[in-house]
Formats: sequence, C-alpha cells, structure tokens
Amino acid sequence: MSLGVLIDRHRDLLEQAEKATATRAWFSAFPESPSPRVYGETAAADGRAAYDAWLGSDFPLATPGADGTVATERSPFGPELGVRYPRLPATDDAVTTLLTAARAAMPAWRRAGVDGRAAVCLEVLSRLHERIFELANAVMHTSGQAFVMAFQAGGAHALDRALEAVAYAHAEQRRIPAEVVWEKPGRGEPLRMTKTYHVVPRGVALVIGCNTFPTWNSWPGLFASLATGNAVVVKPHPNAVLPLALTVQVIREVLAEEGFDPDLVTLAAEDPADKLAAVLAVRPEVRIIDFTGSTVFGQWLEDTAHQAVVFTEKAGLNIVVVDSTDDLHGLVDNLAFSFSLYTGQMCTAPQNVFVPRTGVLTDQGRVSFDEFGAALAGAVDKLLGDDARAVEILGAVVNDGVRGRVDAFEGDPRTVLESRPVVHPAWPDATIRTPAIVAVDAADEKTYSAECFGPVSFLVATGSTQESVERFATGVREHGGMTASVYSTDPAVLDAAEQAAIDAGVPLSVNLTGGVYVNQSAAFSDFHGTGANPAANACLTDAAFVAPRFRVVTSRRHS
Amino acid sequence: MSLGVLIDRHRDLLEQAEKATATRAWFSAFPESPSPRVYGETAAADGRAAYDAWLGSDFPLATPGADGTVATERSPFGPELGVRYPRLPATDDAVTTLLTAARAAMPAWRRAGVDGRAAVCLEVLSRLHERIFELANAVMHTSGQAFVMAFQAGGAHALDRALEAVAYAHAEQRRIPAEVVWEKPGRGEPLRMTKTYHVVPRGVALVIGCNTFPTWNSWPGLFASLATGNAVVVKPHPNAVLPLALTVQVIREVLAEEGFDPDLVTLAAEDPADKLAAVLAVRPEVRIIDFTGSTVFGQWLEDTAHQAVVFTEKAGLNIVVVDSTDDLHGLVDNLAFSFSLYTGQMCTAPQNVFVPRTGVLTDQGRVSFDEFGAALAGAVDKLLGDDARAVEILGAVVNDGVRGRVDAFEGDPRTVLESRPVVHPAWPDATIRTPAIVAVDAADEKTYSAECFGPVSFLVATGSTQESVERFATGVREHGGMTASVYSTDPAVLDAAEQAAIDAGVPLSVNLTGGVYVNQSAAFSDFHGTGANPAANACLTDAAFVAPRFRVVTSRRHS
Repeated sequence: MSLGVLIDRHRDLLEQAEKATATRAWFSAFPESPSPRVYGETAAADGRAAYDAWLGSDFPLATPGADGTVATERSPFGPELGVRYPRLPATDDAVTTLLTAARAAMPAWRRAGVDGRAAVCLEVLSRLHERIFELANAVMHTSGQAFVMAFQAGGAHALDRALEAVAYAHAEQRRIPAEVVWEKPGRGEPLRMTKTYHVVPRGVALVIGCNTFPTWNSWPGLFASLATGNAVVVKPHPNAVLPLALTVQVIREVLAEEGFDPDLVTLAAEDPADKLAAVLAVRPEVRIIDFTGSTVFGQWLEDTAHQAVVFTEKAGLNIVVVDSTDDLHGLVDNLAFSFSLYTGQMCTAPQNVFVPRTGVLTDQGRVSFDEFGAALAGAVDKLLGDDARAVEILGAVVNDGVRGRVDAFEGDPRTVLESRPVVHPAWPDATIRTPAIVAVDAADEKTYSAECFGPVSFLVATGSTQESVERFATGVREHGGMTASVYSTDPAVLDAAEQAAIDAGVPLSVNLTGGVYVNQSAAFSDFHGTGANPAANACLTDAAFVAPRFRVVTSRRHS
Repeated sequence: MSLGVLIDRHRDLLEQAEKATATRAWFSAFPESPSPRVYGETAAADGRAAYDAWLGSDFPLATPGADGTVATERSPFGPELGVRYPRLPATDDAVTTLLTAARAAMPAWRRAGVDGRAAVCLEVLSRLHERIFELANAVMHTSGQAFVMAFQAGGAHALDRALEAVAYAHAEQRRIPAEVVWEKPGRGEPLRMTKTYHVVPRGVALVIGCNTFPTWNSWPGLFASLATGNAVVVKPHPNAVLPLALTVQVIREVLAEEGFDPDLVTLAAEDPADKLAAVLAVRPEVRIIDFTGSTVFGQWLEDTAHQAVVFTEKAGLNIVVVDSTDDLHGLVDNLAFSFSLYTGQMCTAPQNVFVPRTGVLTDQGRVSFDEFGAALAGAVDKLLGDDARAVEILGAVVNDGVRGRVDAFEGDPRTVLESRPVVHPAWPDATIRTPAIVAVDAADEKTYSAECFGPVSFLVATGSTQESVERFATGVREHGGMTASVYSTDPAVLDAAEQAAIDAGVPLSVNLTGGVYVNQSAAFSDFHGTGANPAANACLTDAAFVAPRFRVVTSRRHS
C-alpha cells in the first residue's frame, strides 16, 4: 500500500505514544495478558504451532555475504531448537558485502521521510504483535523465561519499548522544520534566504543482542536507528537468535511491500567461535552500536569503536536498603518475588540487601537481623513451595555460568536460604533453581561487591542505616546499578536515600510492598537505567538515546 | 536578588529563543552593529579603556589548585598583552584540587532547577553584553580579527550562539516532567505510583578553547553544560585567554551574587609546555569535553577520553563547485569576500574551488578557466585595493603557521593571485596578508587535499561539473568540511550538488551572490557543521549537542 495510507493508519497511535513520553503517565498499546479473552481462543495454540514449525528448519532469510548456515540454540527448558540461519563469516569479504548492501538501501529509506519511516516501523510492530504468541515461545525457549513472562516482557512490553523508541525518534526529528524563509532585517532590503533542512542518517547501525532479553533489550535501539533513517545489522546472541530472526523477517517483509530494499535490515547470525560482533563493531561503515551484555565486552566497545556512537547496557549491583517498615509481610513478599522472577537473571534484579546489624523496626516490632533473614527466606519458600507454580515464576537457568554461581554456595555456612533444584512438570530437562540468600558482614566486600548474576542475593549486615546508604551510593558509583530500592518509615532516611540515588545516578523505588517490583521498568514512564553510572552509558528511552542517531544538513539559497 | 526574580526577568527572552530554535527563522537578541546609535556615544571608548586597563595586570580570578601566574598572550596586531592569570600546573595535586572544588559546587547548582539555571545563564549573557566592547577588544587582540568582526562574531553572534545553547538545554530538560501519578489499570484497584524525575548533571565539563574564535566556539558548550547542571573548567588557548577570563569572571560574579559556589566555573590557564588539556581530558571526574581546534588533538580526544562525552570541531576542506551563473560579478565578489574575511582563518572559509577546464557559462558568455581565475583575482584586488579598508576585512594573521603556509606559495608559477603584505595604519607590527589563489589540476590532489588553514585557496580544474560534484562528495567524506557552496543556473546540477551534500553530510549554500557569505553561520537558523563528516562530530546547536549533558533519575513510590 502507499506510504500515505500507512502514515494515516498509524498516526493516532504515534500521537498517543508521543504524548505518553511527555507526560510519562501509564500507557501501553499492546495488551500484556495472554488470556484467550484478549487474544482469542486459538491464539495460544496457533502461536505454539508456528513456533514448533521452525524447529529443525532452515529459517527463510537472505543475508548478503552469508555462507552456509549455523544452528546454535538449545532451549534452557531442554530441547535443541535446531533452526538453521544463514551464517555470516567474520571475513572481510563477507562483512564488506553485508555493509555495502546495507548502505545501498539507505538513500531511498532517507527519502521516505520522518513520517514515512515512523509509519513503516509501526506497521512492523503491528505485524509483530500479530505474531506475539509465536514470539513468546521463541523468547521462552532461548532466554529461559517462563511463558507468561516471555509473553509480557519479551512480547507486549518489548513492543511498548519499541513504540516508545519510535515515538522519541519521530518527535526529535519533527523538531527540525522542513523549510524556513529566513529574513534578516537591515538598513535596506532585508536579506532573504530559503533554508531547507534535511534529516540524514549516520550510517549503518549494529545491534548486538543478548541472551536473556533478546527483544526487550534490542528493539529500542533497532527501531530508534531505523526510524532515524539508518540501516541496521542485527547480530543476535548465538543462544537467542530466533526472536530476532522473526523480527528481521517481519521488517524485511514490510520494507519489501512498501517498495524499500529489504537489505536495509539484516540478520548476521554467527558461529560463536567467529566473534563476529567485534569484527563488525570497528568497521568504518558502522556508525551506531547498541549493545546489551557483559561489562567486559561493553567496555571494550566503548573504548574501541570510536567511529560509532556506542550505547551500552552492561551490568551492575542492584542494592536494597532496609531501614524500617510498616508492612513487614509486604516487604518480604515483594523482595521474594523480585529475587525469584526469572531466577534473578534480570539486569534489574536486586542483589545486595543492606540491613542494620541491630535489626529492623517493623509493624511487628523490632526484628533482628537474623529474624529478618528468616522472614525473607520464609517468603521465598512460600512463594516457590509448589513446584508447578514455582516454575512459572522462575523459568529456567539460562546457562551453565548461572548454575555454577548458585551451586558454588551449596553448603556455605553463611547461607540463610539454600537454593534447591526444581523439576519442571512439562520440561524435565530444564535446569531450574530457587534463589539462595547468603548473609555476610558489610566488611566482607569481596563476597558481595562483584555482580553475581543469577539467583543469589546477599543480606549484608551494616552498622547503621547511615552506613547502608553510604555503601549504597559508593557501590553504585564503583560497580554500577540498574535499580535500587529503599524501605523506611522515616522521611529523613527516605530523603537521604533519594539524595544518594541522585548523586550516584540510579533509579530508586521506595517502600515497594504491593504489585510493583523493583525489577520492573515500565515503558513511557520509567527511564530504564540512567546512563549516569557504570552499569550503562544509555537509558531507555530519552532524547539522548535518539538525537545522536541522525544529523541535519542545511541547504540555503536566496529566496 | 532571588532566583525567582531572575527567572521572571529572563522568561520572555528564553521563550523567544526557544521558539526561534524551533522555527529557525531569523532571530537575534544582541544587536550586531557597534554603532553609537545602538550602544551609546561612549560605549566604544569605555570598552577600549576597560580592555586597556587589563594590559600588564594580574587578572583577578581565583582558581583552586593554581600556583603562580602565566602571561602568554601577544596580539596578532603587535603588542604583548602581558595579562597574568593564575596558572594551573598539570600536576595530579593541582588538578585534583580543581576538580574536587568543581564537584563540590554541583549539588546546590543542581537544586537551582532547570529554570533557575537558565535564568542565571541569561543573566550572565546580559552582563557579558554590557561588556561587549571590552570583549570585542579582547577577541580582536587575541584572535587577530578586525574590530568590527570581533564585535560581531566574538560579541553579538557569540552571545546569540550562547543563548541558543541555553534555549536548547532548557527545552530539552523541560521535556522531563517533574512528577507524574502513574496509574496502571487492572482487574481490581489500579496500581498507583507517584514518580519524581530528577534531572542530574553528568559531572565536570571541560571546555578547550581555540585561538581564532575564543568566545563563539567555546560559549555554546560552556553554557550548554552549565545550563544542564554541570560544573565547567575552561581551559583557554594560551594565545586567547582574556576573552574567556572575562567570561569566567562574569559567571563567577553572578553565581556568587545568587548564592552559588563560584568554583562551579573556573579558568584553567596554563603554561603551554604543560599540555594541561591532555591531562584534564582523561580525568575520571571529567564527563563532558567540548573542543575546537586541530584535527590531531580532536581525534586524540575522541579516541582517548572514553570516560567523557566528547564534542569536537576539528578542521576540513571547504569546497565550492562552480558550474554556471547568471551573475558573474556577484559570484566573484561574494567569493572574494569569503576568501578575505579574517584572512581565511575561519573554519568555514572556502578553500577549493572546482571549475571545469572548459570554463563557466555566465551572464557575460562563456568564461574560460583562466578568465574565471582572473575575474576572481580581480575581485579580491578590488576588495582589498585600499590598505585602510583591507585591514578592516583581513584582520591580522593569527600565528606563524598561517604566515608560513601563505608565504610558501610566493613565486609559485601556478599562482593566479599573489598574496601581499599589508601595513596596518594603526598597528604597524601586525602581520597582515591578502589571500593567494593557486590554480591546480584536479589530478594534483596532493596540493589541495590537505587543509591549508589561512589565506590560500585553490582553483581546481576538473573535466566537468559532474567530476566537480563527485570530487566534492569524496573530498568531504575523506577530509571533512564545515561548509560547501555551489553555483549553477542548471536545476539538475543544483539537485546533484544538494544530493552530494546530503550524502557527504555538509551544509550547502546555493548561488550566493549578495550579502550572505558561505563562511557565515547564523545562530537559531543555520546548523553550524553537521557532525556527519570528519570535520566535526557535533553541530551547533541541536538536541544531540545538549541531551547527553544530563541524565534523569526516577524515584517512585506508591501514592
């Protein structure tokens, strides 16, 4: 259909989304409930069938420069996926072929204009939404997220985050007028010039996906780059290719329908031994990089890929400061859920809980440090007592590294709550662990001051809440943090914690005891990360995340 | 006075400036004419006297960590300035003292809020405007600009560029609401959270000034960083300290009056042997760098200062494509002025003029390549024939490097127009040169493909206009360009040139034959540079220039 029709179709949603980014009130365009009442009686089965049909097949994508195929995915729930993708070798020839094709597709895409590009992106999101159950299965079996979480975080919420990025990109480009007549008054006739402003892309954007959130973390950068006129090469994590292969398939389908060169967006699947990301990242054609993953590789990108604007989300230590509460049950239930959700494998999951050695003043009187640990352990036990229910919260352990870290604490005398393996009723080969809680003294920084990604949290005994707050600020400044949380009934303590969060540059959640969890970040309202501490140099999504992705070329002549 | 009063005083101007950045229509807040009718009968003499009073004196500024003084300025018009500034040694102790003081001043400045910071910045601009004649003398005698240009580019236009940066910074921060009540609908009671958004600075900003435009090029970054809550260390070029010393003096005066710690903004004057900029640039406290200067040091900063966001303006080759014209006189007069203004020592001055070997079709018939060169040479001669008038356009040669480059072409057989020395009637010790024009063949890339900063331009003979346009695009892509210009009566050629400018990422001026020159860039309307080619990684001013200077910390709690 014509681009004009597409623009009309998506105009209202784009306006609503842009308004939401400004007010930051609750907004969502994609229902998060996988209920048949919302999505229809057959949606779940159809999506599962569509997912199953990919298993063991050749995924139908053409990637310029590709040679042969790779199949690198095994579900954390057990089965090999066996999907074969075109393999991009990390050779100069192959990479040049890919990037040349990407660049060749850009001029027509630039000419589609700000509104045209946004409309194509929104059409893509609408088609991805039609395939949300298929995507949810793909996310589940690559990340290890339980199905409902994969549907929500990997589907609906990821779509909202993508829409948010498109809205930001559209608004930021729309601030540049297409043309102005500039008239400078003077003694005689005014000087009069017509100036035309061309929004131009930076170049080829590289998106480097992660294992745990292949869509939620990759889509914002992907769609922000696309909406601002750039070509995009998507380099998925070898363990989580399918969600991004589906994404690229849908984008290429819509591009082709609208008369654009589909090579504008490509999938660069790799043999992990090739270390393809490092090869692509330093190519002169690559002018934007979005990365989610390890601190080591993220830092390498920031230090090395000088030719590109680099947006990274790495890792940090998420801290909870517990001072006092008027709802001990709410507090421990809330934290128990945050520890358990997706086995603590979220970049936003809390790791270190600072509690005064003298205990916590609560609605049930003063609770000692040990009693607080026991209450927390009890809450986790209660939440995960039933295996069938537990697996729907925990999902599966994403890789051996996580399993190794939690198993290393087996039998540790400091353990307040032992991790235990859980057998999944439907997926007997899944590796599943409940969270461990380990009590340490604040002086034992070696134990708790490195990120222990996965289901291990530390209950850290401090001399006072003041010490807790100080260690919180220092910890974020030195090791980074994506989230932080404080519990207190004392306004002075809350103020001090908020000041520490501001100084250290980390988002703060205050007295969460209900249905909102510190690890959840809502599109359009919560800025995910800040870019102000070592955990990440960017934030989802703000103007700084989109504005550097395009440039303006002025052309002026006498009127 | 209270911050509220200051906010009220400057609200209207800020609103007008923000509106101008959006429409990009002509706007200026600071009259560019130094006429007594505008500024009063005594303004010029008072300003000159104020400037003279600084000569040979100790400049009254306190810089934490400073030890002793330096006096490093000699006017390109002849005299030593002899002003002594506190010297910041490039030692770890001195730099730590300075940066610690800068950081300590930031929390109160953050709490001044978005409106408060903008108001303080606008009060500073208003005070600088009161001292515009003093500043113009300081710019003249450090950069070598003639007085009127120093008044305009170094005074009024620099103030407009600073105001533009404050307006962008204010608008970008204002897009973040202070607070929202977020209400997520659900099956039962909605989840309701109050979210507070704190705009936080990145850290200490370092401004590295240049010799030729100490205010125009430094103020945008300085005020953008300040308005977004950061502390700023100003490291001036050793040859052009006074204009930035006056700037820092005024800022510290206003900060102190409003109850802020003046160490928020400091002057870090150096002994040039210390190479202080390189020491400051890699300090972990420094999170933003604005640099104007050489390609070598700019590239080093981009490659090395990973802990900071780095905005650079380096150097490039500015190209003119001449195809045809209906106003040959207008064309050569316009180019002659662009070559001559400030002795070609502007980053925006044209260097390479591509002309077909077969000549140029004009309103005076077909003009051969040689005839075109002669016409251009004649226009320069006419413009600069009278020494007293010439020096007011040329100003003085800023340093020996420029003099050496132009003198190297003396007696070169390819020369179409020889440079000649001019004696300044008022400043006999000034080094003044008229522009040289050298004719070369397009094949002789070695001669014209390096930047030849100063009054040398090359008339490059090409096989056709098509070749000229191709070489234009390639030249910008490889060597960078701040400006570009095309002359043609053929719409197809203009379209091709515009497409080349878009692809290469350089601003284009079309058929300039009147009172607008390719080297002039108007605040609020022209984006100065693009950040899309090697000449600069940033642009004055767009959202990408301000948005990365601050971050947002969210704090949320149940309502």
